[in-house]
Amino acid sequence: MRLLKMIAILLFPVLLAAQHPVTFFTRAEAAEVKRSLAKYPLLTQSYNDIKKEVDAWIGKDIDVPFPKDPAGGYTHDKHKYNYTLMFNSGILYNLTGNIKYARLVKEMLLKYAVLNPALKNHPQATSSSPGRIFWQALNDANWLVYAGMAYDLVYDSLTTAERKAIEEGAFRPEVDFITKDLQTWFDLIHNHGVWACAGVGIVGIATGNQEYVDMALYGTKKDKKSGFIALMDELFSPDGYYTEGPYYTRYAILPFCLFATALDHARPSLKIFEYRNRILQKALVAGLQQTNLDGTFFALNDALKEKDYTSNELVTAVSTAWAMYGKDNGLLAVAKKQGRVVLNRGGVSIAAATAGTKVIPVFYPYSTVEYTVGSKGDEGGVSLLRNGKGKDLTTLIYKYTSHGLSHGHYDKLNYNLYDKGNEILTDYGAVRFIGIEQKYGGRYLPETKAYAAQTIAHNTIVVDEKSHFGGKESVAEQFHSTKLFSNVSNPAVQVVAAKEEHAYEGVKLQRTVYLIQLPEGRKLLADIFNSNAAEEHQYDLPFHYNGQFISTSLKYDPYTAKLEPLGKKNGYQFLWKEAEATIADSIVQLTFLNDRTYYTISSLVQGQAQVFFTRSGANDPNFNLRHEPAMIIRKKGMNQSFVSVTEIHGNFDPILEFSAGSYPSVKQIKILQQDERYSIVEMQVNDKKLIIAQLNNDFDTKKVHSASGLSWTGPFAVFYDGKKMN
Amino acid sequence: MRLLKMIAILLFPVLLAAQHPVTFFTRAEAAEVKRSLAKYPLLTQSYNDIKKEVDAWIGKDIDVPFPKDPAGGYTHDKHKYNYTLMFNSGILYNLTGNIKYARLVKEMLLKYAVLNPALKNHPQATSSSPGRIFWQALNDANWLVYAGMAYDLVYDSLTTAERKAIEEGAFRPEVDFITKDLQTWFDLIHNHGVWACAGVGIVGIATGNQEYVDMALYGTKKDKKSGFIALMDELFSPDGYYTEGPYYTRYAILPFCLFATALDHARPSLKIFEYRNRILQKALVAGLQQTNLDGTFFALNDALKEKDYTSNELVTAVSTAWAMYGKDNGLLAVAKKQGRVVLNRGGVSIAAATAGTKVIPVFYPYSTVEYTVGSKGDEGGVSLLRNGKGKDLTTLIYKYTSHGLSHGHYDKLNYNLYDKGNEILTDYGAVRFIGIEQKYGGRYLPETKAYAAQTIAHNTIVVDEKSHFGGKESVAEQFHSTKLFSNVSNPAVQVVAAKEEHAYEGVKLQRTVYLIQLPEGRKLLADIFNSNAAEEHQYDLPFHYNGQFISTSLKYDPYTAKLEPLGKKNGYQFLWKEAEATIADSIVQLTFLNDRTYYTISSLVQGQAQVFFTRSGANDPNFNLRHEPAMIIRKKGMNQSFVSVTEIHGNFDPILEFSAGSYPSVKQIKILQQDERYSIVEMQVNDKKLIIAQLNNDFDTKKVHSASGLSWTGPFAVFYDGKKMN
Repeated sequence: MRLLKMIAILLFPVLLAAQHPVTFFTRAEAAEVKRSLAKYPLLTQSYNDIKKEVDAWIGKDIDVPFPKDPAGGYTHDKHKYNYTLMFNSGILYNLTGNIKYARLVKEMLLKYAVLNPALKNHPQATSSSPGRIFWQALNDANWLVYAGMAYDLVYDSLTTAERKAIEEGAFRPEVDFITKDLQTWFDLIHNHGVWACAGVGIVGIATGNQEYVDMALYGTKKDKKSGFIALMDELFSPDGYYTEGPYYTRYAILPFCLFATALDHARPSLKIFEYRNRILQKALVAGLQQTNLDGTFFALNDALKEKDYTSNELVTAVSTAWAMYGKDNGLLAVAKKQGRVVLNRGGVSIAAATAGTKVIPVFYPYSTVEYTVGSKGDEGGVSLLRNGKGKDLTTLIYKYTSHGLSHGHYDKLNYNLYDKGNEILTDYGAVRFIGIEQKYGGRYLPETKAYAAQTIAHNTIVVDEKSHFGGKESVAEQFHSTKLFSNVSNPAVQVVAAKEEHAYEGVKLQRTVYLIQLPEGRKLLADIFNSNAAEEHQYDLPFHYNGQFISTSLKYDPYTAKLEPLGKKNGYQFLWKEAEATIADSIVQLTFLNDRTYYTISSLVQGQAQVFFTRSGANDPNFNLRHEPAMIIRKKGMNQSFVSVTEIHGNFDPILEFSAGSYPSVKQIKILQQDERYSIVEMQVNDKKLIIAQLNNDFDTKKVHSASGLSWTGPFAVFYDGKKMN
Repeated sequence: MRLLKMIAILLFPVLLAAQHPVTFFTRAEAAEVKRSLAKYPLLTQSYNDIKKEVDAWIGKDIDVPFPKDPAGGYTHDKHKYNYTLMFNSGILYNLTGNIKYARLVKEMLLKYAVLNPALKNHPQATSSSPGRIFWQALNDANWLVYAGMAYDLVYDSLTTAERKAIEEGAFRPEVDFITKDLQTWFDLIHNHGVWACAGVGIVGIATGNQEYVDMALYGTKKDKKSGFIALMDELFSPDGYYTEGPYYTRYAILPFCLFATALDHARPSLKIFEYRNRILQKALVAGLQQTNLDGTFFALNDALKEKDYTSNELVTAVSTAWAMYGKDNGLLAVAKKQGRVVLNRGGVSIAAATAGTKVIPVFYPYSTVEYTVGSKGDEGGVSLLRNGKGKDLTTLIYKYTSHGLSHGHYDKLNYNLYDKGNEILTDYGAVRFIGIEQKYGGRYLPETKAYAAQTIAHNTIVVDEKSHFGGKESVAEQFHSTKLFSNVSNPAVQVVAAKEEHAYEGVKLQRTVYLIQLPEGRKLLADIFNSNAAEEHQYDLPFHYNGQFISTSLKYDPYTAKLEPLGKKNGYQFLWKEAEATIADSIVQLTFLNDRTYYTISSLVQGQAQVFFTRSGANDPNFNLRHEPAMIIRKKGMNQSFVSVTEIHGNFDPILEFSAGSYPSVKQIKILQQDERYSIVEMQVNDKKLIIAQLNNDFDTKKVHSASGLSWTGPFAVFYDGKKMN
């Protein structure tokens, strides 16, 4: 028995390598794809695209240059192109049987087998995780993933000597480099780690190297504290929120899908797609729910606003999910916009479904969703309150998460508003031009940390002109905001409350946001933001808006002949001060026009406040920043309440020259009661009263309350025109 | 015989009035529309839209308020809505026979019959042509056009007493007002005049009032120096260019079409649609050729960039042209984007054509076109050089027109570049928010004249920081630029030369522009701009660009901590100076990214120059301006040559993270010869030489030239890699 076990263990690597291909798809799957190629337009098109691309290189001597350039430079782009080319050519070999495709892969891999052993750290390496083929190790991991699959795809066509040359020359130095030289980085819980594990794991499966696969699954120490399984445990909350935010879900989901697929073939007993209650499916759905109508990812944390779900990563994820988890009509809308599929079983089935479905929805089926954050779901969360159908969708994103690792922003209790597919109250995202060499070698620009990550770049309170947690990642990583309660069961009144007690020492921040639709259809975002402190502070609340300034209730002093920055540090130095005003005991109103809709922010000032109109772009010698406007309300005192409402109103048609409802309906805001226990505010909306009553410290849903002449049950109540709405 | 004549004259008004409807369509035409309603989707849809709109008002008491508000305000918008409603209801009466639609029109017109005699000048009137129902007379003329047609459409349903009440009460005071009180304005050669004539003329036809029709056709004095015929003669060049620019073609074409249609029914002997070699057809085609791929009108003169050919005016024009001039496949692309037709014969035929055409082109069939300006075609012109197919279209608009009346800009020899549907080198257009009351009563904002019209807001030379013609319309109207030669027969090398000798006293400006496509596909806009003067001047050449700053060859001083305006007047006060540089004997290069394409401007500096990077938005207390960047090259001296090339290169895919060709290929620019007779320049394009040789004062196409070691025939030659391209 013991002997049998030993034999089994010894045989295992051999078994692993016994059938090829086994990573991207299996032989049976390849045959299925081949049979289906002409059947479904999406599949046919995807195949033709790849074939055209690869065929252009057949018979050519393909350059495998010595690494030299940063992102966007020649050697960087060439190596990136090369691994995709090898992968695609490997697929074509299996779908056509034509040896020329295998030969292309072989010749390239043999060049890498010569190149890789000679490599030292990349000359442009600047990060703590330098690469060898590329400037950063992350890209080397990408290379391992695709080169590993390419090798597996042509394995059968190679001689033993060729296999040895490639495994020892092309792969081993890279695997050794990232698992040994960069061991700490490899074992990190971070999106880089997913790529690193997927790369080593796929190469392990392709080359029948159990050691590689085990390191990939369980970390270099195989103690399960790191590695792929730990990453699946720790990078997602139980409901699928990816800890770095939606933009990075996009990036991480690809290696998760690719390695999981390979594992599903090579180690089916792992049931990797079922792992953690189908966490990969949840991750994909959470990622898609966190997109705008046009498919771009919500710009939480460092994010590029152009990125959408038509990217490669999501094409793979959608095909994978369809294959592993079955039919999902929501995914069809995404697949249709993607316009291509991957050439495996998932791709076949989604192409078939697309061809067989008469009416594919235009938009992903967005709904109100709330996600927890953290592997146990106990590190705050994010709520996406939604209202409206089709193009008329309004989404409020309220973020009370943990920090989100190295790409996190200091943006506790921040919110962003999207409406009709447009970003209305904005998050700057990241300051970057991906892959454009002239712009800092295609890397994140320094202004990402210096401006975009800072609190002032967000729609949340900045105390004393300092960012949350002093702008220190190490501190921010120790804390998270806390959700107090939410109620999203009634689409006309959706509410979420959360608090943040660690961002500033001695200051407690608590914000309750309401997405309300009045009976006549008008939508309002109401916001009660209380700050409490025992000492006097300065509180700045910015509204970063996207639109053309139409009017304001303020009498302001514009800086027409000279502009100076709003401040000196913590992101303030990047804001030009375009105008300022002092206001007392009144409401601040700003109306702006975005596309064809008017939006008005109304915010109550009790006592005195300063208001600034700013625009990003100061202290930007390299012209890296976009020039975006904000209104910032500044109050001073111990406890302060910011009661604000953003209303969506009217419409403007520049072609028909038609403008209607350009004035706000909010006429006045009053605080009826504000204390430790209650916040009760009254808003005059045209000739009617909208009253919001909320508990600040008791969220029992059954408790009955009476205050300010109102009675209600539970932690909040909204009254309109004398009637309770919720 | 004499008696017969007299009887005929006496009868004529009666004859005119004998059949109704006769303005918008005839009874026979209405029957044709009715028969076709269910046949063609575009027609059905257009009918249903109107019916739904009008039906919502049936049985309601419709407000005809006493005029009070400016553009965008309630009474303004209500009256505007009312005339459209009456018109549409009148159409429905004819198509359904249902008297309720006639009754709606009658009741509204009777209210106007009570209101109009009581009106004095509008309380918000600020212009020299005040209105009564509206703040400006132009809108009153709009009202006459539509109310006149509405009256005609329901004429048959009215009693004699009702007719009298409406003709005397609703129409006469308005007609008297604009033909007597505003006689000078009525007789003006201007787009307002077209509306005024169409209004009075249509009311004349509808009410059988020959006096009105004659004034409309030949001016209040009936001397033919003004009126509709004179407007057709004078507002267009012989090839259809509308003197105020394409944006205003859009506006003027509607009353031209509506009144011409009514005349075609009521006075067919005029053959109005054949007049001046079918000038209305030419005007429409010229208007459409001057649009971008997305249908927006090129922003010459005061123009709003959102306006496109889906506007009401163009829907009417397209239907009219189809009916009057027959099938035109180019119009189908436009009609498809418009998504609606007018409910007359033209609408029926274009809806039928749309339904019957399998493949409707995506874009209007844009081509290289050159238009003359002025009624005789001898007041300069505009050339639109085009290269590329479908979405890959490049358009260079070179403007050497006359001033263009009150909406003209001081922009002699200006050019703008469009590429792939995006505006690359820009024209600010107009500073305006149409119809938004909060923004200066919905009127043109003061910054239109103060900034957008000024020379510095354009891509042409500003001498001594003063605008062309001292920024005086009365002076500018006396002159026009002059075309010297052009050759557009070879798509790979298109060239236009023009000069301007009056914009600045003692300064001769001459600019030759080339749109070149190199054999390998790269497109370049080359530009030789010579200025000659006997005295020393300062020459500023701006490049207003639309895109993200990527890199520059300049070592510049950025204004990171303080911004000040570039100058004090003539538009300079609106530009923040973001950076400046001094450069000598070199080329200035600026690379920017627009959408997914890189563009690099390279410009030669011989001797010394200053360069400024600016952004609009200074001295803008009301936040009226967009914040747009420019690079301005400043040279001093007597004669100066600006030799520049804008190259279109590379591509960037933010979703696939792919960037290629982000560096320019132009490495060096040299002037080989520059004198009164020749300009010969050499550009190093990667490892090849592009040489442009041109004559500056002899444009004989047959003459043979030898200079700088080159030989060629005619006014220009372009050599690439030693071979002649043209």
